[in-house]
Order: sequence, then structure tokens, then C-alpha cells
Amino acid sequence: MTLFSKDIETLDDLFVHTLQTSYYAENQIVDALDKMIALASAPELKAGFEQHRAETQNQIARLEQVFGMTGGEARQTRCPAFDGINKANDATASDIADQQVLDAALAGGAQLVEHYEIAQYGKLIAWANALDRDDCAAMLAETLAEEKAADERLSRIAEAGLNRQAAHLTA
Amino acid sequence: MTLFSKDIETLDDLFVHTLQTSYYAENQIVDALDKMIALASAPELKAGFEQHRAETQNQIARLEQVFGMTGGEARQTRCPAFDGINKANDATASDIADQQVLDAALAGGAQLVEHYEIAQYGKLIAWANALDRDDCAAMLAETLAEEKAADERLSRIAEAGLNRQAAHLTA
Repeated sequence: MTLFSKDIETLDDLFVHTLQTSYYAENQIVDALDKMIALASAPELKAGFEQHRAETQNQIARLEQVFGMTGGEARQTRCPAFDGINKANDATASDIADQQVLDAALAGGAQLVEHYEIAQYGKLIAWANALDRDDCAAMLAETLAEEKAADERLSRIAEAGLNRQAAHLTA
Repeated sequence: MTLFSKDIETLDDLFVHTLQTSYYAENQIVDALDKMIALASAPELKAGFEQHRAETQNQIARLEQVFGMTGGEARQTRCPAFDGINKANDATASDIADQQVLDAALAGGAQLVEHYEIAQYGKLIAWANALDRDDCAAMLAETLAEEKAADERLSRIAEAGLNRQAAHLTA
């Protein structure tokens, strides 16, 4: 972005810009999940993060395919929204001493990341459809389904045990 | 937060902390919606933002009631996640000259805010349930339902016309 020009002129440009911020975020999420795996204690939470780390690697490869379909090369553009979410999750985690409360916070923090991704892929799919790029939309829809499933899995893990275990401390 | 202490000791503390960041975000959202109403051109988009601005005022009042139920006073705690989302939306909007592309971007940006809120209220409700605070959970669930409805309304508006109007420019 230069100071006096507007770089996004068309919906195609907006689509590619959002692909680039999503590509940045997915790459950051691999590192964020590594931190969360190290911080988590509950085995089911660690396993959930590990499963999503493997999915994220696939999602990165899928974004690279979508870049290819648009005729451009894969490029990361920094996303202040993802950076802010990451910063908030780190700040909250570093402010918690108790491991069971930390597990509840990590699950909730990961769901904030999932919802960021659900919003990003939702936009990308709608714009791909408007641009008559059904091929891109179909590939992005695979990732969106995985993000929604990851969010639901985290809810199940949290509600099945983590949150109650964390709550016992407050009795 | 002080430098060497961990301020969140219990799930109750984490619940109140997240109430405070949500209270900050909702207050910021009123201002963000004012900006988006001014920037939007499509009448249905402007009307959608205006409807959600009124809902947001109710949601702020509801959070104040939940603070009251917990015996604390309503307090805002700055949320880096919301700040990042707001910054990303502002940066994208300021990089678009064309009004129809801007409308598509504004709808998508608002959906990112909705998903932030869906994640925040989802956590708050799950933690209220774990803490046996059904009264708080019920009140927060009213807001969550409104956030989900607002997200779906934005999808309908975008897919019914905004995105296609923006796409025509790229032919």
C-alpha cells in the first residue's frame, strides 16, 4: 500500500488481498498451535490441537492451489486482525497460573482463531461465487468445513470436562 | 495486570475478564458501526448496520446486567483482538476507491466482527454454565442469538446483490 493510491480497485483485488491475509494467518497459526500444544495439559485438548495443526498444513497447501488458480503466486500479507487475536490469546495465557483454568482459556482462545478463519473463508467463498470462480469456491469450502468442525470439536472438549474441572477451583 | 503476578486465578476471574473485554468491544462497535454507516452506499447495507447499532446498545445494557449479577461493576478492559479486527477493517476500507467494492468489503468486515462476538459469547455462556450461573448464561444467550442472526443477515445482503454488483467491475 502506498500513501496516496488505493490498491484495491476490483472485487478480484479484494479476493486476492483476503487470500494473502488468510495465507499469512494460516502460517502464523502453525506456530500458535505449537505454543498451545506446549501449554495445554489435558490430553484431549493437546490431541485436538495436534489434529488441527495437521489440518492447517493441508489448508496452507490448499490456499497455494487457489493462488495458482487465480494465476498469481502465493504471497503473505500481514493481517492486523489475526495479530490482535494472537496477542490477546498470549496475554490471557500469560496471566493464568492454574493449569486447569489455562486449559479452559486455551480452548476458548483457539475458538476465537477458528471464528476468525470461518469469517475469512466465508467471505472468500462468497466473493469467489460472485466472480464465477466455482473452482476456487469449492476448494475453499473444504477448508471452511474443517474450521467449523474444529470449532465444534473444541466446544465438545471444553463442555465435556475442561470447563467443569476449571470451575471446581472456584468453589 | 502487573509484571510478576498472575491476575487470573480462577474460572470466575477468567469469566469476569472476558466480560470486561466484551464490554470494551461492544462499546467500540457502536463507534465502528457509525463509521460503517457513513461509508456504506447500498441502502440495505446501511439499514443492516443501523439495526445492529440499536441491538448493540441493548447488548451493552445486557452486559451491565450480567456484571450486576456477578456482584461486580461494569468495567471495560481493552481487547487487543478487537483492536486488531478494527484496524484491519479500517485499513482495507481506506485502500478501496470503488463504492461497490467498498460495500462488499464493509459487509465482510462486519462479519469478522460478528464472528469475534460469537466466539466471545460462546465462551462466556459455556463458562457461566460450568460455574452454575444459569442466570448469566440465559442473558448472554440472548445476545449470542442476535449476533448469529446479524451474521446471517449480512450474508444474505452480500449474496443477494452487493457481491455481484462489485464483481461487475472486474469483467
